[in-house]
Amino acid sequence: MCRWLAYRGTPVLLDTILYRPAHSLIDQSLHSKLGVETTNGDGFGVGWYSAHDETPALLRDVGPAWNNRNLRELADHVRSSLFFAHIRASTGTAVQQSNCHPFRHGRWMFMHNGAIDGFRLMRRDLVMLVDPELYADIEGTTDSEVMFFLALTFGLDRDPPAAVAAMAGVVERVGRDHGVEFPLQMTLALTEGEHIWAFRYSSAGASRSLFYSSQVEALRRLHPDLAFLREVSDETRLIVSEPLGDLPGAWNEVPENSYGVVRPGSDELHRFVPFAPTAA
Amino acid sequence: MCRWLAYRGTPVLLDTILYRPAHSLIDQSLHSKLGVETTNGDGFGVGWYSAHDETPALLRDVGPAWNNRNLRELADHVRSSLFFAHIRASTGTAVQQSNCHPFRHGRWMFMHNGAIDGFRLMRRDLVMLVDPELYADIEGTTDSEVMFFLALTFGLDRDPPAAVAAMAGVVERVGRDHGVEFPLQMTLALTEGEHIWAFRYSSAGASRSLFYSSQVEALRRLHPDLAFLREVSDETRLIVSEPLGDLPGAWNEVPENSYGVVRPGSDELHRFVPFAPTAA
Amino acid sequence: MCRWLAYRGTPVLLDTILYRPAHSLIDQSLHSKLGVETTNGDGFGVGWYSAHDETPALLRDVGPAWNNRNLRELADHVRSSLFFAHIRASTGTAVQQSNCHPFRHGRWMFMHNGAIDGFRLMRRDLVMLVDPELYADIEGTTDSEVMFFLALTFGLDRDPPAAVAAMAGVVERVGRDHGVEFPLQMTLALTEGEHIWAFRYSSAGASRSLFYSSQVEALRRLHPDLAFLREVSDETRLIVSEPLGDLPGAWNEVPENSYGVVRPGSDELHRFVPFAPTAA
Amino acid sequence: MCRWLAYRGTPVLLDTILYRPAHSLIDQSLHSKLGVETTNGDGFGVGWYSAHDETPALLRDVGPAWNNRNLRELADHVRSSLFFAHIRASTGTAVQQSNCHPFRHGRWMFMHNGAIDGFRLMRRDLVMLVDPELYADIEGTTDSEVMFFLALTFGLDRDPPAAVAAMAGVVERVGRDHGVEFPLQMTLALTEGEHIWAFRYSSAGASRSLFYSSQVEALRRLHPDLAFLREVSDETRLIVSEPLGDLPGAWNEVPENSYGVVRPGSDELHRFVPFAPTAA
Repeated sequence: MCRWLAYRGTPVLLDTILYRPAHSLIDQSLHSKLGVETTNGDGFGVGWYSAHDETPALLRDVGPAWNNRNLRELADHVRSSLFFAHIRASTGTAVQQSNCHPFRHGRWMFMHNGAIDGFRLMRRDLVMLVDPELYADIEGTTDSEVMFFLALTFGLDRDPPAAVAAMAGVVERVGRDHGVEFPLQMTLALTEGEHIWAFRYSSAGASRSLFYSSQVEALRRLHPDLAFLREVSDETRLIVSEPLGDLPGAWNEVPENSYGVVRPGSDELHRFVPFAPTAA
Repeated sequence: MCRWLAYRGTPVLLDTILYRPAHSLIDQSLHSKLGVETTNGDGFGVGWYSAHDETPALLRDVGPAWNNRNLRELADHVRSSLFFAHIRASTGTAVQQSNCHPFRHGRWMFMHNGAIDGFRLMRRDLVMLVDPELYADIEGTTDSEVMFFLALTFGLDRDPPAAVAAMAGVVERVGRDHGVEFPLQMTLALTEGEHIWAFRYSSAGASRSLFYSSQVEALRRLHPDLAFLREVSDETRLIVSEPLGDLPGAWNEVPENSYGVVRPGSDELHRFVPFAPTAA
Repeated sequence: MCRWLAYRGTPVLLDTILYRPAHSLIDQSLHSKLGVETTNGDGFGVGWYSAHDETPALLRDVGPAWNNRNLRELADHVRSSLFFAHIRASTGTAVQQSNCHPFRHGRWMFMHNGAIDGFRLMRRDLVMLVDPELYADIEGTTDSEVMFFLALTFGLDRDPPAAVAAMAGVVERVGRDHGVEFPLQMTLALTEGEHIWAFRYSSAGASRSLFYSSQVEALRRLHPDLAFLREVSDETRLIVSEPLGDLPGAWNEVPENSYGVVRPGSDELHRFVPFAPTAA
Repeated sequence: MCRWLAYRGTPVLLDTILYRPAHSLIDQSLHSKLGVETTNGDGFGVGWYSAHDETPALLRDVGPAWNNRNLRELADHVRSSLFFAHIRASTGTAVQQSNCHPFRHGRWMFMHNGAIDGFRLMRRDLVMLVDPELYADIEGTTDSEVMFFLALTFGLDRDPPAAVAAMAGVVERVGRDHGVEFPLQMTLALTEGEHIWAFRYSSAGASRSLFYSSQVEALRRLHPDLAFLREVSDETRLIVSEPLGDLPGAWNEVPENSYGVVRPGSDELHRFVPFAPTAA
């Protein structure tokens, strides 16, 4: 299992979000409170969009985030208005850069916490459902990357929630074909550089933790003396595996089996229902 | 492309073969003479059988062999009567431990120099031909590992030359289906811990270099003063991508489209003809 | 801070000691119970003596021990009658192979858990006390390695306990010169391939945990059904930062400010008193 | 020995300079033409100043530059008007991040190609001459880093050419004290984020190669059709270990025993003479 964080809002130094908070993602890499494992030291990744670029930049490495100097450097020097960060606790697949999140395809980024139960058994069947045109771009060996490529296959570019629903539906169908009762466990985030879609779902209805930050305006009223809140825009939003601190009123649990959209204008929260396309 | 070396004979310190010769594999990692690239610095591996074990031990890492301290340590302390060593020059796939040769399955080891031309296009078709029971054990993303798993699929345990012939035949058939005229380029070595099978083949009939060492007895007559030759058994044999030095009479080219078997008793050299099984 | 383990006795597969026990060193790398940190993921090392060699072999790497495949391989294939293993939690110095324990000099190995408080301040003074002939062999930047080189300087080859007492005395004197009240915190192990010397000491009299295993004979009487105990010799001994399991009667705390000698014949336990040589 | 590159001018994507030229630094990592070694695969580093920052950001890693994905990512996404890049061929010291150039101290960056002959012998004496206040900031074990810290000790902040002259003078004096006739071989670059100082010197008067690019205005007249030349400012300048291509008129050798200053306004070229301070 893993921990992750997605940020969209006023451009900030990555350090502000990745290292500064009391229970930052870096702290979670050593001392996760809500994760399956306390330690998330099997690689990490950060992906960010810059002003000039349509595709995000990635820094990923196989060691722990907490002692990585290149991550520390980038956090001290890179500003971004939309970035993903992920720390990995392998569920068995190799610790290698190509298995580190976020994954990228074109301008899309994807990251995941959770697992496909029985993935070893059903890996072949799932990979076969990936669009043959996309197949050759699979670089690693994780269940997460296959989930991403299934979502790409099922129309991520056209309708992200529908594509994720199709992916989840297919994973559950293939899983049950292999006798796995509850195949899917996921909190995942997707972006094309403008919106963030974040999903919390599990076949068993017992999903890993996921939180979103409260509206900045409301937080400012609660905490008028916090400088950080005055510096960021009203629309700034964080989605995190676990709260970065204990500021009262700051964090809200994403409900079971739902997904949110962070975007220009008011954000949204919807119910999530897997739906396997009949053709697949 | 890559360079490799296979040793079978009197137990020796790995150092004797890996580092000591004038144009050792370590020297080849920086200054290959016959390879496609002069530098082979995209990872390395060594696999050896010990007296106690049926399965070989592997040391593989992603940096260059020439500066790796753990390889240097093992070479100074491990003795073996049968070992493989490989230095990699990636043809594009990720530089990661799971892509480093030798690959292992049970007591089998496999290593390869060459490439499947158009592998990106035909990867999916080839992977689909791997026995579904074996599929989940594929850990990396190289053409080489897929070749190994195809050979395992086609009966490596029963008849190694036939299994490799079937693998090569299938690669050529799938390649030609994708419009690739000369799909296969390979020098490869296989062992189950007792025999070594070494193949030199390419669809275009222009295979990468491969050499085997002369019979020790004959070399002793040529070079009666060489201590090393007196210390090793008559049956000691090396197969190498390029000669480890320029000792007159020591190295013989493996002929085009052929394979050799190094084993207890007299070794053999045969013609190699790919043969795609009709069922596959 | 770190965790370590030293073994001397019947030759065993490293796996037996490193991975098999319920609270093995690998488990401690993720879930240390008695360490300053629960996670020890900043590199690791194992050093072992083989039958053929006077100097030990080392495998050291910068990632966590728990996911390292090369360590897993060696543990499955290497047997030794005397080996050290160490997992590191950096107290700030760089995570690099040259900072991983065990350190080696000639046939000596050294590993350490603890720290020199104020090392940054006194590093220069301490390094200046290292024998100029030895100075060039310092490869890393840890306080631990400097402690080893001070012990080498003060006659490790002649009288190990006296050399360690001199090292500790010098560290305390230099520390106090820099206004550090309690400069030294250490549990450390030394070997020349035959004896193991293990020290537990801290300037403040509050040393990190250190345990030694009970006599095998006594343990056999307590646990007559344990196969492992029947397979190892009477003289087999382990010294560990924390017990590898909860077998009743198996583990004994090394007393504060003392050192033990594991050796052929009966082992010894003595009081440890730092003693700075006046010349240094 | 190593290869390096320093850029100052119109902000460009790092890719433009690091990867695009025919004989780019990446190409030099595999196929150096003028270096002591053809392969420079023992780690790399890039350091760049951004608009917001006074101190540079660093990306350094221990593998070869040619296959490093994080470097490829940054090159595709980071723009800078002043950056250093370095590829390392170790002369024996450990391949570790703390030995990768550029080195940084405050807003200063430093990189070096060359060696101190006999460094192993004189390391202790040289390190002792480093300002004790700075000593604790030495993180690696290279001769290059010690040269940087000596320059910092001798007033880099006040007068860079004088500080480098003092460093060189001290290295030569200590070298000769140890019986080394020609102790110093260096091409090195220094910057505080605004100027670049580049030095070419060797005790033997046979220095490693170093080149600077011609004035952009002159190059535009020679090559009026080259788009790149129209896009960069008149003051854009490159200093490189070896030319990045064979554009006629583009590259000029830095004379033996001289140094250049790249800066706002017209650049300068001066004679370089080591000068050991009597106090040191």
